[in-house]
Amino acid sequence: MTYCVAMRLADGVVFASDSRTNAGVDHISTFRKLHVLNQPGERTLVLQSAGNLATTQSIINLLRNRAREAEKPNLMNVPSLFEAANLIGETVREVIFRDSQAQQAGSSTDFSCSILLGGQIAGEEPRLFHIYPEGNFIEATRDTPYFQIGESKYGKPIIDRVLTYDTPLEQALSCALISIDSTLRSNLSVGLPLDAMIYRKDSLAADEQYRITEQNPYFAQIRKAWAEGLLNTFLQLPPLDLTPNP
Amino acid sequence: MTYCVAMRLADGVVFASDSRTNAGVDHISTFRKLHVLNQPGERTLVLQSAGNLATTQSIINLLRNRAREAEKPNLMNVPSLFEAANLIGETVREVIFRDSQAQQAGSSTDFSCSILLGGQIAGEEPRLFHIYPEGNFIEATRDTPYFQIGESKYGKPIIDRVLTYDTPLEQALSCALISIDSTLRSNLSVGLPLDAMIYRKDSLAADEQYRITEQNPYFAQIRKAWAEGLLNTFLQLPPLDLTPNP
Repeated sequence: MTYCVAMRLADGVVFASDSRTNAGVDHISTFRKLHVLNQPGERTLVLQSAGNLATTQSIINLLRNRAREAEKPNLMNVPSLFEAANLIGETVREVIFRDSQAQQAGSSTDFSCSILLGGQIAGEEPRLFHIYPEGNFIEATRDTPYFQIGESKYGKPIIDRVLTYDTPLEQALSCALISIDSTLRSNLSVGLPLDAMIYRKDSLAADEQYRITEQNPYFAQIRKAWAEGLLNTFLQLPPLDLTPNP
Repeated sequence: MTYCVAMRLADGVVFASDSRTNAGVDHISTFRKLHVLNQPGERTLVLQSAGNLATTQSIINLLRNRAREAEKPNLMNVPSLFEAANLIGETVREVIFRDSQAQQAGSSTDFSCSILLGGQIAGEEPRLFHIYPEGNFIEATRDTPYFQIGESKYGKPIIDRVLTYDTPLEQALSCALISIDSTLRSNLSVGLPLDAMIYRKDSLAADEQYRITEQNPYFAQIRKAWAEGLLNTFLQLPPLDLTPNP
């Protein structure tokens, strides 16, 4: 599995992904799931991917190759993030159709994938889309400012409790790291290192990218502070006070 | 869905379940998922069920009816919890086989269910089993003292962080309630009221059963204390301190 989260907030967009892929428990590898296409001052596009690794690698490669053919609509020349999401959706359908058509009869490989697309194109606000395996997609709003893909349930409660549209970007990234930490502790299919990025509204730049390894002192510090804070909060809860059923 | 958790600890066994069932979002009902069979001073058996409601109700009814036929092995006369788990497993297989055999061709109803069985029979230690839809089962140990069934992921991180085999029973029940609270907030298919029970080692009694509604003052109090504690812990995390990738 994989766990990726992206948050579209008042001041910009925050991204964080793990890097573990597994095909069975004895075939575990590290692959980056956060991909950046950047034309400084003009557009910054960030893609995060979860699902079948052959599918997602194929999609990212096709999108990057086509971005060099300037005569056709591609991620580097479409005028809006909506059209970029549309292009990605078409590529998702193309790859899944191609690979599943070629499948042997009776085989049941799951070729599906999910993609998050966030960032900004000059002339628009920052935007964030969640693209489904069917190629259709939804956009984040002020009411629902974040999306998750992959192994998302373990890390959802903490985001639901602390994130709002107005959370500062740095604090939102800390929240994303805590959310991934909760997932790492409960699920072996999500693993370090992490890739993260802060995109600041109107910066049209991709210079705040981070790779966070097991040795990262800040990640170690907030993991420890969070674990201790939770345990203290739990130990200070009021003692059980319930009346048995008659 | 459903969320049930049971913890087999040094001092006894703790159980907590929600009560929501849903067949689609417009067919939501309340059904108790915690069932007690008790022969004071001799045996206390607690079952929790998740999955297809017709399947689990049928299983519980068959088990209760058969417990009145003293000449055959049943939940009220088998000499060990292991044999009780075996009987439940056989009944799970019987009901799922019966109902799925009668299924119309092309229909894909999921008849499966999972059951937790905990408690004590005089002469044994307290024990806890997780019975799968296939009728086979596993037993909780000191290393892995708790089991969850149903919508388990949202509420797992908090248990993993605070529960140990030596956690006192009252504190373990608070932990279970917090775990359910995390699930309630993130998933609509889990809902109040809750049913809970504390079984104290060697008590062979079922007098500590609780029903917890939205109005329960203790549940309201720990939900609030937990939410505030988490938020404070989050707000006091050290500020983001990461070095961008070169």
